[in-house]
Amino acid sequence: MNPAASPSDPACPLCGPAPAGLLWEDARLRVIHVDDSPFPGYIRIIWRRHVAEMTDLSPAQRGNLMQAIYQVEALQRQILQPDKINLASLGNQVPHLHWHLIPRWHADPCFPDAIWAPNRHDPVQQAAWQRQAHALTTQRVPLLRKAITDAFEGV
Amino acid sequence: MNPAASPSDPACPLCGPAPAGLLWEDARLRVIHVDDSPFPGYIRIIWRRHVAEMTDLSPAQRGNLMQAIYQVEALQRQILQPDKINLASLGNQVPHLHWHLIPRWHADPCFPDAIWAPNRHDPVQQAAWQRQAHALTTQRVPLLRKAITDAFEGV
Repeated sequence: MNPAASPSDPACPLCGPAPAGLLWEDARLRVIHVDDSPFPGYIRIIWRRHVAEMTDLSPAQRGNLMQAIYQVEALQRQILQPDKINLASLGNQVPHLHWHLIPRWHADPCFPDAIWAPNRHDPVQQAAWQRQAHALTTQRVPLLRKAITDAFEGV
Repeated sequence: MNPAASPSDPACPLCGPAPAGLLWEDARLRVIHVDDSPFPGYIRIIWRRHVAEMTDLSPAQRGNLMQAIYQVEALQRQILQPDKINLASLGNQVPHLHWHLIPRWHADPCFPDAIWAPNRHDPVQQAAWQRQAHALTTQRVPLLRKAITDAFEGV
């Protein structure tokens, strides 16, 4: 792996060293657990090269990236049993190709809106969600993190 | 094409007849122009079968759906020249697999947030955006609609 061989932008935060929550990386992509999120098991997959859109990739590269997404989605569903999976490639704030893979629950703060919509919870709902999220984070998310690392390492 | 052969849910709005804005359909998917949106050139691609997640599809079906997404994204970029493309499969409100393909502009109401975030515009910004959006809608979106139909029909 030689990241220096990839086009990169010194001003881009996703071109820098691996962030906290790194579960796996190779020369093509990084798989990150977003551990400061209120959504347990939120994973980000970041393409290593500094490109903005899926159609900036070759068909083989797109296939490789989507395969990683399906692998993580399958593990999120199996281990966390969320009510829905949300997939999104936005990149408006950081135009470096990356995907959000977000498990969603009926009781989460934004459901059924996108996670970028306002929080809908009143204090009682928020407290109940925090208990549910804490249980997921302590009991299930460690299993998800290990399963992702194992799957990508081919263990 | 025999939609009746596909699993469908009578209560699901995406299992019903083709909605307004239909640009193309076959037995597998529908391509819709979202013509009541403030985001010019917003396209929705709806999988015909009533399934919820990408990992409910076979690898060949996933490839077919993503190929349609890349084809539309390429045409949105070429014809509309937006500042960014947003791709998202959420389905929290309607858990029937569909993708949002949203051209974004620096001046649009939510940029750089997701389109599901609150509108950031003051009245002056909103008026300027409405002029830009009107020009796109009248001059470029008809070209996009025709290009998508032609591309999917193999013209």
